[in-house]
Amino acid sequence: MFRELTERILRRGAGAALGLAPTEGQPALRRAIAVRAGVRPEQVLVVAGAQQGLDLVTRCLIDPGDAVVLDRPGYLGAIQTFRAAGAHLIGWDVARCDLDELEDLLLRYRPKLFYTTTTFQNPTGRTWPLRLRRELLEFVTRYRLPVVEDEPYRDLSFGAPPPPSLFTLDGGRCVIHIGTFSKTLAGGLRLGWLVANEAIVDQLALVKLRGDVCTASLTQLVIAEFLTSGRFDSHVATLRAEHARRHEAMLAALRRLPPGALTWAPVAGGLNLWCRLTPDLDPRDLCDAATAAGVAFVPGEHFYPDSADTGELRLCFSGVPAARIDEGIRRLGDLIRSLPRRFPPLNGAPPLV
Amino acid sequence: MFRELTERILRRGAGAALGLAPTEGQPALRRAIAVRAGVRPEQVLVVAGAQQGLDLVTRCLIDPGDAVVLDRPGYLGAIQTFRAAGAHLIGWDVARCDLDELEDLLLRYRPKLFYTTTTFQNPTGRTWPLRLRRELLEFVTRYRLPVVEDEPYRDLSFGAPPPPSLFTLDGGRCVIHIGTFSKTLAGGLRLGWLVANEAIVDQLALVKLRGDVCTASLTQLVIAEFLTSGRFDSHVATLRAEHARRHEAMLAALRRLPPGALTWAPVAGGLNLWCRLTPDLDPRDLCDAATAAGVAFVPGEHFYPDSADTGELRLCFSGVPAARIDEGIRRLGDLIRSLPRRFPPLNGAPPLV
Repeated sequence: MFRELTERILRRGAGAALGLAPTEGQPALRRAIAVRAGVRPEQVLVVAGAQQGLDLVTRCLIDPGDAVVLDRPGYLGAIQTFRAAGAHLIGWDVARCDLDELEDLLLRYRPKLFYTTTTFQNPTGRTWPLRLRRELLEFVTRYRLPVVEDEPYRDLSFGAPPPPSLFTLDGGRCVIHIGTFSKTLAGGLRLGWLVANEAIVDQLALVKLRGDVCTASLTQLVIAEFLTSGRFDSHVATLRAEHARRHEAMLAALRRLPPGALTWAPVAGGLNLWCRLTPDLDPRDLCDAATAAGVAFVPGEHFYPDSADTGELRLCFSGVPAARIDEGIRRLGDLIRSLPRRFPPLNGAPPLV
Repeated sequence: MFRELTERILRRGAGAALGLAPTEGQPALRRAIAVRAGVRPEQVLVVAGAQQGLDLVTRCLIDPGDAVVLDRPGYLGAIQTFRAAGAHLIGWDVARCDLDELEDLLLRYRPKLFYTTTTFQNPTGRTWPLRLRRELLEFVTRYRLPVVEDEPYRDLSFGAPPPPSLFTLDGGRCVIHIGTFSKTLAGGLRLGWLVANEAIVDQLALVKLRGDVCTASLTQLVIAEFLTSGRFDSHVATLRAEHARRHEAMLAALRRLPPGALTWAPVAGGLNLWCRLTPDLDPRDLCDAATAAGVAFVPGEHFYPDSADTGELRLCFSGVPAARIDEGIRRLGDLIRSLPRRFPPLNGAPPLV
């Protein structure tokens, strides 16, 4: 399908496909993204993957020593990006999503930015309910706190669509929204977008101009065609059904483990399941043993800006078919049974999201 | 040709073509570039165009207030990049290329970096002779001054190949070399490379990882195939011959202008001719009138880090066929004859390179 569309775009004219694009993006792709996001094309900035969107915002807004509030646990790439910029990272506990806590952090640290993934969050899979989104928006509007809402998984619901994004609820005043084709099409495309008010898009485009001039033209034209032809939607529908099957397969396999070995909260979409390991095992020990046994997961500490060891881990159910998920969880269970026990850490484990 | 290669790569397997590449680049492309540059693949960093190479170096090395020495006149994109990073820009006069002057600048400003285009320089078209390259290298080695050598036009010689790059002469100790496919293939590919010692490549790759994770996989694989199949070389040979023809056409047209209207130094490759306008005309006035008459050139002041008006301008001979070059220069001549004169600026014009 990708090959056919690429062929079509190249036949249509190599000039447009290989020449420089405007820094803000190929008009056809900006339009297609704008239609989906319910914004004007001028509010769309095409970026080389969500990571570039995050990098541009960081370069524009964050100076060394600035405070940034972000999900705790939260997206590893964001933690690393803000840390590399010299930011002071303040975690906001996503298990509680307590606005009083957020207000306290705001008054104490005066952050420049609040970074969050509101839908099928990485790593917890959690989706913020509509009421919380509304309350949060009222809150950040009152405090004039810029929000970066990163939603790489929005299209990957197993069932009903998720609540509207903060950006949509806000109408683009306080919120910068980042999206990507990495999770729905392919990471190697390096194609994502950012939606914000026009003044912010113009500023970020200036930084992008210095960074890489523009994103590759051909990829932009091919994906614009993919979106407007309706093929993207049918592709995503297939993807969602398959992810739902794999999620079910993982839950079924987890239920066959000894009670308490791994506990988890089911998710309504996305790619990951967030689990708690029995407290007398260290996730890092299990990770080492699992890697040797051909099973990959990420110990939870990596998702904490303060590297806290909370005995959690992230299992990804999207990468392999159901039969291999079943086998992987079985091997994990064998390792959990056989690994030497440790004294549980003294600090009480937080509630699992 | 591009379409055929893209088709071939996608048939070979969409997984590799659409999945994430290593941040440093697809191994096949790193190898192909390394062979041409005479280095090990580990010394190659694939970047999203030369501009990203320059941006990565700037992010790694330049803090606000740092001094950077660069060609005067020199590449506009570099001037803007260093300026955006808050650098203090110190121009080194490329018409004289005087090492005593450079030493004076070094001792006075203690620059972090020396940025230069050694071959078919933009805007002057000048190519540094081998002796000067050797002397400069000895000089920067003695002072431990990091050099960024930007060579977008190296492959575009009309005749004999240019002298070895500073990087080649140096063996990659002090010099970071930047190259691009933008001038030989297409700017919209967003594909270039950077060659340096491995420790520097590793550091820059870390910054690239935060910037855009990696460069698009498919483009890398297609261009690797282009390079190894030998088609790149035959394509560039065609390009060089055509550019030489256009250069000749421009010189012929310039010779038909009234004496002294425009003076110029012929070049041995690249895309541009650097000209001096008769001193009683302002290049900006001519530029406005020329744009209205459908003729585009860049007033020289844009290439000076200090925005000096030296009565120069840059004509590009690569963009349009010979007949249109002839017509363009004819229209320029008409405008030069008809525009109102000014008093020449008081400062004596520097020698034309």
